[in-house]
Amino acid sequence: MKSITTTSYSIHFNLDAFNALNAHLEEHTYSTIFIMVDENTHEHCLPAFMSQITGDYAFEIIEIESGEENKNIETCTGVWSALSELGGDRKSILLNLGGGVLTDLGGFVASTFKRGINFINIPTTLLSMVDASVGGKTGVDLGPLKNQIGVINQPQMVLIVPEFLQTLEARQIESGFAEMLKHGLIKDKNYWGELKKITSYKEMEAHIHDSVIIKNDVVTIDPTEQNLRKILNYGHTLGHAIESHYLESEELPTLLHGEAIAIGMILEGYLSYKLTGLPKSELEDIKETFLGRYKKIEFTEEGIKSILKLLIFDKKNSHGNINFVLLKSIGEAVYDIKIKDELFSEAFSYYKE
Amino acid sequence: MKSITTTSYSIHFNLDAFNALNAHLEEHTYSTIFIMVDENTHEHCLPAFMSQITGDYAFEIIEIESGEENKNIETCTGVWSALSELGGDRKSILLNLGGGVLTDLGGFVASTFKRGINFINIPTTLLSMVDASVGGKTGVDLGPLKNQIGVINQPQMVLIVPEFLQTLEARQIESGFAEMLKHGLIKDKNYWGELKKITSYKEMEAHIHDSVIIKNDVVTIDPTEQNLRKILNYGHTLGHAIESHYLESEELPTLLHGEAIAIGMILEGYLSYKLTGLPKSELEDIKETFLGRYKKIEFTEEGIKSILKLLIFDKKNSHGNINFVLLKSIGEAVYDIKIKDELFSEAFSYYKE
Repeated sequence: MKSITTTSYSIHFNLDAFNALNAHLEEHTYSTIFIMVDENTHEHCLPAFMSQITGDYAFEIIEIESGEENKNIETCTGVWSALSELGGDRKSILLNLGGGVLTDLGGFVASTFKRGINFINIPTTLLSMVDASVGGKTGVDLGPLKNQIGVINQPQMVLIVPEFLQTLEARQIESGFAEMLKHGLIKDKNYWGELKKITSYKEMEAHIHDSVIIKNDVVTIDPTEQNLRKILNYGHTLGHAIESHYLESEELPTLLHGEAIAIGMILEGYLSYKLTGLPKSELEDIKETFLGRYKKIEFTEEGIKSILKLLIFDKKNSHGNINFVLLKSIGEAVYDIKIKDELFSEAFSYYKE
Repeated sequence: MKSITTTSYSIHFNLDAFNALNAHLEEHTYSTIFIMVDENTHEHCLPAFMSQITGDYAFEIIEIESGEENKNIETCTGVWSALSELGGDRKSILLNLGGGVLTDLGGFVASTFKRGINFINIPTTLLSMVDASVGGKTGVDLGPLKNQIGVINQPQMVLIVPEFLQTLEARQIESGFAEMLKHGLIKDKNYWGELKKITSYKEMEAHIHDSVIIKNDVVTIDPTEQNLRKILNYGHTLGHAIESHYLESEELPTLLHGEAIAIGMILEGYLSYKLTGLPKSELEDIKETFLGRYKKIEFTEEGIKSILKLLIFDKKNSHGNINFVLLKSIGEAVYDIKIKDELFSEAFSYYKE
């Protein structure tokens, strides 16, 4: 697959990815090359990764614990300390080998260590390949509030090696696929039509490149999310609140990011039907597609209340208003839509139906 | 005094400062205006500050504990949480009213809260007026390692109101003056000559503007410290290590930043005499001037060892080499000078003589 060039760096695929990395490491004389992994990528991805490195470098490996619950400042402090103790300096580079939690956190750690060192992201989940690989958002959670702390900063390059997906559980792959479906919903009706028929992981893999192009086009026009980039948050305003609610609770089961935003996309689809003219048939198509792929969740009244409370902390709000991205139709999104409170419970009722 | 324009913002003085602030707050409809203070500026500076605000705004005050020992990630977490709980969003602004610890930390908190909100610095110490006000360095310490975590990011504006200095202890003002003397040493022999004769605080105040111009000229040429900006670190390589050593120890008395770099400037003056041709007479002038103003410190052999160990963590090093800024003569600095270990103990011996 052809490399994709963003405003400031390139995204390389498959064998090209390793060629680009090897060339980069050869050109730059980094003082130390750090690789951050979690216990999963340490075992399942690092050996394959290392076998592709042609130069003779002394790598320092830093392992963090996997999971959204570790995407916090305490983990950052551990990594900053490890970088210091292992002699990291301004000429060091950090290679982030892992899913979105790891690349978001690693990007933030690198952007703030000694006021910024170089980093390269090597996403190992479908979600991070299609989403976290473009746009430079880095950051960690603050308590239950997702991505509350972070900066926008670009890596030196992103390497996408779909081979790593073979180490993933099916549920993780389906979770990432929700973001790809979102790309269809907000930007390209045909793409949505194509994707929703997909059943095999091989076919999903084949479309990673398309999804990255859609996201990159949006982010290139509006890198700092002043306007157009907001459409990428479709499904995320309610989706994040649902995800936070599940993360906070000790009784509720784990809900993956894609699973949460799949629900968010149904709920916000309903809001779109009520407010921005999304045809009823398209709303039903959205609901059917997501419920066909992701398990339906039973929300209690109390649960919904907690979720709506978390909404007001969402970073995309300003002046106390809650701003939504909605659809005019499948393939066309609008942003900065303010919503009245009573519509939320209607949306949840529609989801429950 | 005339406002000074940097690459991206202005530094306003005295009454102009409040006029600029009032105009800024009027032009921008911030959702929430946060003011960060410490217990000292809360009591001694905030009332005077508030009395100059002409618009009718609801301010939220966030207080942190003063002192370098609180310039850490735990304090940041407290402020990030307070910002979240008080409804801070992307359209909020943070006004940092305090010394260098507070403006460095506040700048970092603002730059990373929801991936970056606006901030304005109102330095209240001489040190922060002449040093932290320009250049966009933000950050906090990691354990004893100074400014290990941070970003380079510019405030909306900086307000310098020397009136606030009246609330400072004499020792704090002398500490800030060390940075002004440094400006003479690295850039302007006449300025050094003028400053070293100064005895009254009024005269020091009158030269703040000159020092800010010197620093701004340097930073404008090299904002990210690739080359020329390094000269601002004169005295800081050894000075920071000395400061860290004192900060780490529970037995040693407090050593202020300016006091530490004053020692650093004597030590690095000696290295300059040995390596880059600083005339003996100028070295003696430097030593005499600083020892005339700052108490001589008794270093033990063990203390010196610890300080040299801390040196290798200094963020300005790369590839394990220790890079120094040295003087060819008073008013002319050179950077990226590598030093052999044995010279350090000679330098300390010279300081002790």
